[in-house]
Amino acid sequence: MNLRPPAVTVIGLGSMGSALATVLLAAGHTTTVWNRSTHKTQPLLDRGARPAATQAEAIAASELIIVCVLDYDALHAVLDPVVDSLAGKTLVNLTSGSPEQAHEADSWARAHGVDYLDGAILTTPPGVGNPEMMFFYSGAPATFEAHRPTLAALGDPLYLGTDPGLACLYDSALLGLMWSTMTGWLHGTALVGAEKTAATTFTPVAIRWLSAVTGFMTAYATQVDAGRYPGDDATVDVQIAAIDHLLHAAASRGIDNALPELLKTIMERASAAGHGSASYASVIETLRNPVRR
Amino acid sequence: MNLRPPAVTVIGLGSMGSALATVLLAAGHTTTVWNRSTHKTQPLLDRGARPAATQAEAIAASELIIVCVLDYDALHAVLDPVVDSLAGKTLVNLTSGSPEQAHEADSWARAHGVDYLDGAILTTPPGVGNPEMMFFYSGAPATFEAHRPTLAALGDPLYLGTDPGLACLYDSALLGLMWSTMTGWLHGTALVGAEKTAATTFTPVAIRWLSAVTGFMTAYATQVDAGRYPGDDATVDVQIAAIDHLLHAAASRGIDNALPELLKTIMERASAAGHGSASYASVIETLRNPVRR
Ligand SMILES: NC(=O)c1ccc[n+]([C@@H]2O[C@H](COP(=O)([O-])OP(=O)(O)OC[C@H]3O[C@@H](n4cnc5c(N)ncnc54)[C@H](OP(=O)(O)O)[C@@H]3O)[C@@H](O)[C@H]2O)c1
Ligand SMILES: NC(=O)c1ccc[n+]([C@@H]2O[C@H](COP(=O)([O-])OP(=O)(O)OC[C@H]3O[C@@H](n4cnc5c(N)ncnc54)[C@H](OP(=O)(O)O)[C@@H]3O)[C@@H](O)[C@H]2O)c1
Repeated sequence: MNLRPPAVTVIGLGSMGSALATVLLAAGHTTTVWNRSTHKTQPLLDRGARPAATQAEAIAASELIIVCVLDYDALHAVLDPVVDSLAGKTLVNLTSGSPEQAHEADSWARAHGVDYLDGAILTTPPGVGNPEMMFFYSGAPATFEAHRPTLAALGDPLYLGTDPGLACLYDSALLGLMWSTMTGWLHGTALVGAEKTAATTFTPVAIRWLSAVTGFMTAYATQVDAGRYPGDDATVDVQIAAIDHLLHAAASRGIDNALPELLKTIMERASAAGHGSASYASVIETLRNPVRR
Repeated sequence: MNLRPPAVTVIGLGSMGSALATVLLAAGHTTTVWNRSTHKTQPLLDRGARPAATQAEAIAASELIIVCVLDYDALHAVLDPVVDSLAGKTLVNLTSGSPEQAHEADSWARAHGVDYLDGAILTTPPGVGNPEMMFFYSGAPATFEAHRPTLAALGDPLYLGTDPGLACLYDSALLGLMWSTMTGWLHGTALVGAEKTAATTFTPVAIRWLSAVTGFMTAYATQVDAGRYPGDDATVDVQIAAIDHLLHAAASRGIDNALPELLKTIMERASAAGHGSASYASVIETLRNPVRR
């Protein structure tokens, strides 16, 4: 039994690719690296990485190739010229993109005999290597299972399904949640800040409150799946009444209200659609039926 | 030393007022109740509450009066006719409102010789009595300290400061965070749902991700207080690039994009104001400088 960690090639040594290669080296993998701008390889060579003069030479060095570049255009700029050298190997693409781009990359890989997994990284470079951080993968389950031990060095590898677009889809969905949450938090921070409350005073309270909010989300997820939204605890109409206090308080303190105004509009659309006495989970019906503009 | 819990009067027996009275009774307080619609008193009388024929009679029964009605108009409708009977007593108002309404109520109470605390309840009626749930109070610290043991029966009492508007201000700020977070979560749930992922499958992942997001919030709170937003991990411009994947994925699945479109607009305003290479925390500067419309 060979316990030596398998060789890996990392293509793309921006801040994220460099973090991936650093962690693989630390985990004992023979790691070959390549980057368009060659000067970015040096810190990794200093840590024991193997150099490659061309991307083809880098690909030849390992059965598993991890690529993490700016976007899918960069991916094709780097790999299209050498796609034949990828045949029979596994390409794990950690470049961010849309599900449609992941589907195209999967078809392109398939057409050239490459085993392809699309992935997404749910952390920043300093979080790479932390087993609590989520990495999403989608594509053929056997390909994922074959490389799971290597991928586990980077973070917690979560396999989402055979549809190669799923990793990008989850990634986008979670980033949307992050921007919504962070903007709502900054709006609240600006509001209490207008009364001289420090962000570092307000934020622990906000974080404690978010753990109550995740309790509502868990209860509401069941309602979403059932397609029924009993408003036993708090109804959409009650929220509409309450948001006016926020709009009033923020407006009189000179804070931009575009976000809570939009949230109120969305709630009012839910109420107008007959969900006034339903729970907030019913708002999903409104999101699934966009206003034609 | 008298260890008997002090007598309390609860005025307003909607779903929240009834929950408050139920918990006070369970904690051993002699509890007198009054509600405009008298039939709502019966379940509490069955649990041992004392009846009062009028709100003045209810007020006479205790030194501490807790009121929880629909809004501040209802508060004045109930208490204005009997305000003289409140002189020398403590009124804790758990009715939701704006900071301005809390200030007015505080002046009104002061003018009539009433010790006044404004409060806000950060849970739904079933959460009342759970020591993890937050109750905010603002007003004179001595008044809060005098009644803290009683208030602690209802949930975790957090004292925010002497400004009576603070409880309502924090309440609005946190509800805004809740609506932003829940709408972002529902948008993501609709997005992955378009590819047949159940809400109950996506939500545990979303909740796990939110705990990473609270880590960013903690780091960014320090930046907000310092007024400097180093973009070491992820910059506003990087987020603007990433949000296009979300807009594209959601639009092609027929999901309403008003929320992410607004978030992108807010980020673009931050970038245009010179924060493109700064962290997302810099968005607070944009929120503090509303577009004049
Ligand atoms: N940083 C994060 O926090 C984070 C988190 C999650 C996901 N991601 C994703 O990870 C990927 C890489 O991000 P990063 O932070 O490492 O970005 P970065 O530091 O800007 O690095 C970009 C990488 O892409 C390469 N590249 C760009 N255009 C190219 C082209 N036309 N041809 C060849 N190579 C090209 C760059 O090569 P040169 O060095 O030659 O310019 C560099 O290796 C992105 O898709 C990003 O969304 C990043
Ligand atoms: N429910 C929650 O999850 C929750 C959470 C946090 C905060 N709150 C706040 O708690 C307060 C009460 O909410 P709730 O859920 O108990 O509402 P509710 O079930 O609708 O009860 C409303 C109460 O207000 C009384 N009321 C309304 N208008 C009145 C008037 N003009 N004169 C006299 N009494 C009047 C009602 O009396 P009648 O019975 O005679 O109609 C009833 O006692 C609100 O400010 C709400 O925002 C509620």
